[in-house]
Amino acid sequence: MRPGWIAADWGTSRLRVWAMGAEGVLAEARSDEGMGQIAVGGFEAALLRLIGLWLSDGPAVQVVICGMAGARQGWQEVPYRRLPCAPVDPQALVPVPSEDPRIAVRIVPGLAQAKPADVMRGEETQIAGALALLGSFDGVICLPGTHSKWAQVSAGEVVSFRSFLTGELFALLSERSVLRHGLAAEGWDDEAFLAAVSDGMSHPQKLGAKLFGLRAEALLQDLPPATARARLSGLLIGLELVGARSYWLGQPVVLVGEEALAARYGAALAAQGVQARLLPAAACTLGGLAAAVGQLTLASSGAGRKA
Amino acid sequence: MRPGWIAADWGTSRLRVWAMGAEGVLAEARSDEGMGQIAVGGFEAALLRLIGLWLSDGPAVQVVICGMAGARQGWQEVPYRRLPCAPVDPQALVPVPSEDPRIAVRIVPGLAQAKPADVMRGEETQIAGALALLGSFDGVICLPGTHSKWAQVSAGEVVSFRSFLTGELFALLSERSVLRHGLAAEGWDDEAFLAAVSDGMSHPQKLGAKLFGLRAEALLQDLPPATARARLSGLLIGLELVGARSYWLGQPVVLVGEEALAARYGAALAAQGVQARLLPAAACTLGGLAAAVGQLTLASSGAGRKA
Repeated sequence: MRPGWIAADWGTSRLRVWAMGAEGVLAEARSDEGMGQIAVGGFEAALLRLIGLWLSDGPAVQVVICGMAGARQGWQEVPYRRLPCAPVDPQALVPVPSEDPRIAVRIVPGLAQAKPADVMRGEETQIAGALALLGSFDGVICLPGTHSKWAQVSAGEVVSFRSFLTGELFALLSERSVLRHGLAAEGWDDEAFLAAVSDGMSHPQKLGAKLFGLRAEALLQDLPPATARARLSGLLIGLELVGARSYWLGQPVVLVGEEALAARYGAALAAQGVQARLLPAAACTLGGLAAAVGQLTLASSGAGRKA
Repeated sequence: MRPGWIAADWGTSRLRVWAMGAEGVLAEARSDEGMGQIAVGGFEAALLRLIGLWLSDGPAVQVVICGMAGARQGWQEVPYRRLPCAPVDPQALVPVPSEDPRIAVRIVPGLAQAKPADVMRGEETQIAGALALLGSFDGVICLPGTHSKWAQVSAGEVVSFRSFLTGELFALLSERSVLRHGLAAEGWDDEAFLAAVSDGMSHPQKLGAKLFGLRAEALLQDLPPATARARLSGLLIGLELVGARSYWLGQPVVLVGEEALAARYGAALAAQGVQARLLPAAACTLGGLAAAVGQLTLASSGAGRKA
């Protein structure tokens, strides 16, 4: 196997790579060597540990990376591109020097917005992939996650976006706060989740009290731990939805994310009368990286693209 | 020295004790053996390590403890007293068996509210101490901290209260979230703090976005780390103030807490036109424990108490 090019998604906690051929994915691999786990100077070696077997002598294989490899603590800091702009521009990939002559590495720049100040690294590639998958789309793309993003896209460009710390708050509160004593690691309660979304949207100013209330109800009323987990998630997603209302209200909305989480956002939006379309995160990442190297994308309808 | 009795404040992360005589405090000591650091069965030994030198043979010395010693993970779980009630009732202290015949230990019960579900352990003693110090007071007592409390007191009773997870959120976000990279451990910016209080009060639904904005401004605009710290604190305290508005609006407010934190709450309230009176936390704890053992308190005016 000799891949035509190699796609890589380098997150804070994970590295995922795909060997790409003319027909699509030839092979894939992943490791826990995320940006956060790698010391300065260790990025090329971490990459080669995953893709080494795919390489052979001859012309260098192109490797295109999105995500935190371009962060200040990454392989090489890559300046953000400024809004408004296409999510990914094949002309704007930034070459990164590598010692191994078998690879030619480039990093996809993240996007920055001046006011309100906001940044993304990696999601721009997923947005490009979503646009490729959708063929033509003007509206809002929501990317739930550690730092959820809501992006307004129009005529193939990202016009504005806003990030929310929702996923990181959920992780901190469920794993490290006093709430962890009464919270299940697994399990779910759909009804409690949707009630909490509504509660979080109606009373965002009560967040601190509602959070402590989960602890109090665990102590006084034996709140089931799976219910507590669903309520915590619902309160935080509800807070995000009311804060992002100007993005989704009256707009076509596409959700790009890990399946279970995207489904929760979908249910929360449906309760507000918004039917969001769900796209799988990995397919969007890969589609966006393909767009970055100028490949016609794998799953794109091709037809009807505007920009 | 033989103390008349011994006062103890056993928090989650700290134990503080006072040897009390007829004239007041004879000696005091503290350790980091908070409730969270002590294994089951280890509480008496931890207490004796601090107060052992104060003990001698003869009649057992009374030790009265408030705080987390009465929690489920504490020395012995002590049921909450239910609202409305006096913050501390000398008749309701719960004896705890001890092996050492030189001490007779009792724990001050915490308070519980059924709806909305809420609990406190330790703050009830500070409220009792504040009431003793104030002589006579109907209004609201705010106790900023890890889990801030706002308590409505009337005719010597706690009528209702609400807890907010504010302090724990600040600790998690400043020490363990992505924001820690751009946040100073020390340093302050009064103007940024008050602007963020106002912002947090006006736009509670934007919390998740404003939090991520601190990270983005650090990356894009070199937001000074001390300013970021003050803004984080202001956003969270602002969120609490708007959520607790029904407590402080048009009410006499007393703040009981650690000096720097209480001063911040005082400044935030002053910006809303509320002049809160500040009382030191330790004096309130000690006053409340004195009330619990039926002592006329040290610093009380004595005159004019209603209940």
